[in-house]
Amino acid sequence: MKKLILIRHGESEWNKLNLFTGWTDVDLTAHGVEEAYEAGKLLKKEGFRPEKCYTSYLKRAVKTLNQVLDAMDMDYLPVEKSWRLNEKSYGAIQGLNKADTAAKYGDEQVLLWRRSFDVQPPALTPDDPRDPTNDPRYAEVPADELPHTEALCDAIARLMPFYNGTMMPALKEHDCIIVAAHGNSLRGIVKELKGMTNEEIIKFNIPTAVPYIFEFSDDLKLQKDYYLGDQEEIRKKIEGVANQAKKK
Amino acid sequence: MKKLILIRHGESEWNKLNLFTGWTDVDLTAHGVEEAYEAGKLLKKEGFRPEKCYTSYLKRAVKTLNQVLDAMDMDYLPVEKSWRLNEKSYGAIQGLNKADTAAKYGDEQVLLWRRSFDVQPPALTPDDPRDPTNDPRYAEVPADELPHTEALCDAIARLMPFYNGTMMPALKEHDCIIVAAHGNSLRGIVKELKGMTNEEIIKFNIPTAVPYIFEFSDDLKLQKDYYLGDQEEIRKKIEGVANQAKKK
Repeated sequence: MKKLILIRHGESEWNKLNLFTGWTDVDLTAHGVEEAYEAGKLLKKEGFRPEKCYTSYLKRAVKTLNQVLDAMDMDYLPVEKSWRLNEKSYGAIQGLNKADTAAKYGDEQVLLWRRSFDVQPPALTPDDPRDPTNDPRYAEVPADELPHTEALCDAIARLMPFYNGTMMPALKEHDCIIVAAHGNSLRGIVKELKGMTNEEIIKFNIPTAVPYIFEFSDDLKLQKDYYLGDQEEIRKKIEGVANQAKKK
Repeated sequence: MKKLILIRHGESEWNKLNLFTGWTDVDLTAHGVEEAYEAGKLLKKEGFRPEKCYTSYLKRAVKTLNQVLDAMDMDYLPVEKSWRLNEKSYGAIQGLNKADTAAKYGDEQVLLWRRSFDVQPPALTPDDPRDPTNDPRYAEVPADELPHTEALCDAIARLMPFYNGTMMPALKEHDCIIVAAHGNSLRGIVKELKGMTNEEIIKFNIPTAVPYIFEFSDDLKLQKDYYLGDQEEIRKKIEGVANQAKKK
């Protein structure tokens, strides 16, 4: 059986502060670091032996992967970073408080920006220091590929070259790989692997720092997928994420 | 000016316990983690903008680099890991207490193993679980390239393909790169860059977790090299390393 391990980053500073994050490069909290380390300990205990790792350009995902590898004593594994695994861009509302934004634009509008498949938040303008075209880390990405805002469908569209051109070929070559990323970039991967509809993926909530395992036959047909760990605790974590999304 | 940043890993658990480490994959101490983070803060403050990073297959070097990148808010940088940057192998005395080893083999013999250019400690046998041929992390390295023990000259010899085939070409392509590694693999790089003799490099002690900067002209001629930070404190650190080497 070939195995793909997906892992969503642990709790970040802005999760705690209830701010829209998106492409903002916020850090993990101490709790987030610990969650990630525990996930690594569990993967080690269950005998997973990944051969190649992928993560985004954002600190909270990179550090989640670092913690996992540290706990597994597999710090030596090759890691490739891709901006295509970044979180969905929240455009001009990045850094704003979720409650304040709801007060300004109305609950219904904010809910569309957060939970629709194809409605984009207001875009960043090119002169905005938050715009990725002003961030040297993206200097090698063609400017017309960098998003100024994204709906979930846009985030999935820019993820696909990573999915088809990097991740699936790596799975062909290796028996086990890890992808450490974000709620919405991982949604793109799950939607594609499980053939979900747009409506299904919007309602699908991935818990933080829980190893999500996909098993494949040698010809890369999906056999089964499951979360690793205490199923009752994971269920509570998923409900927490779902409720978080309902809060203003 | 092109820049190469060398950094030796921070304090490790076995430094503290006075054990021979070599290729053993020991962790950083809390102090070692802190030293590395401080080095990253200093590099950030001084405006260094590395574009590519290299480290060994050993946890203490990988984690030192992770701390540096975290402190610089440059977690997104590409990192390449190479076993050729590993510490000198201490062969069969790895894991032994330095004082016990001196009692068993004599002070003079141990001093030769530690501080000569070309005397190897006793070799690991292929059935020893500590031998790198039994470690899955080196599965892709041809078995006849993996050392069972190393003198400094052997460690430098296996480093050279990294130096000539990876590091110098990367410096040609980029304005600034980082190499996070170990006392003896970094000695190999310094010896080559500065054209030192065998006797000079043996006496040359690199302090832990201090950024060691090499500046080059565009055609890669070395212009100058210096340690970054408080020079008086660095002098004390170097003396500490030199005295460490004299202790039994």
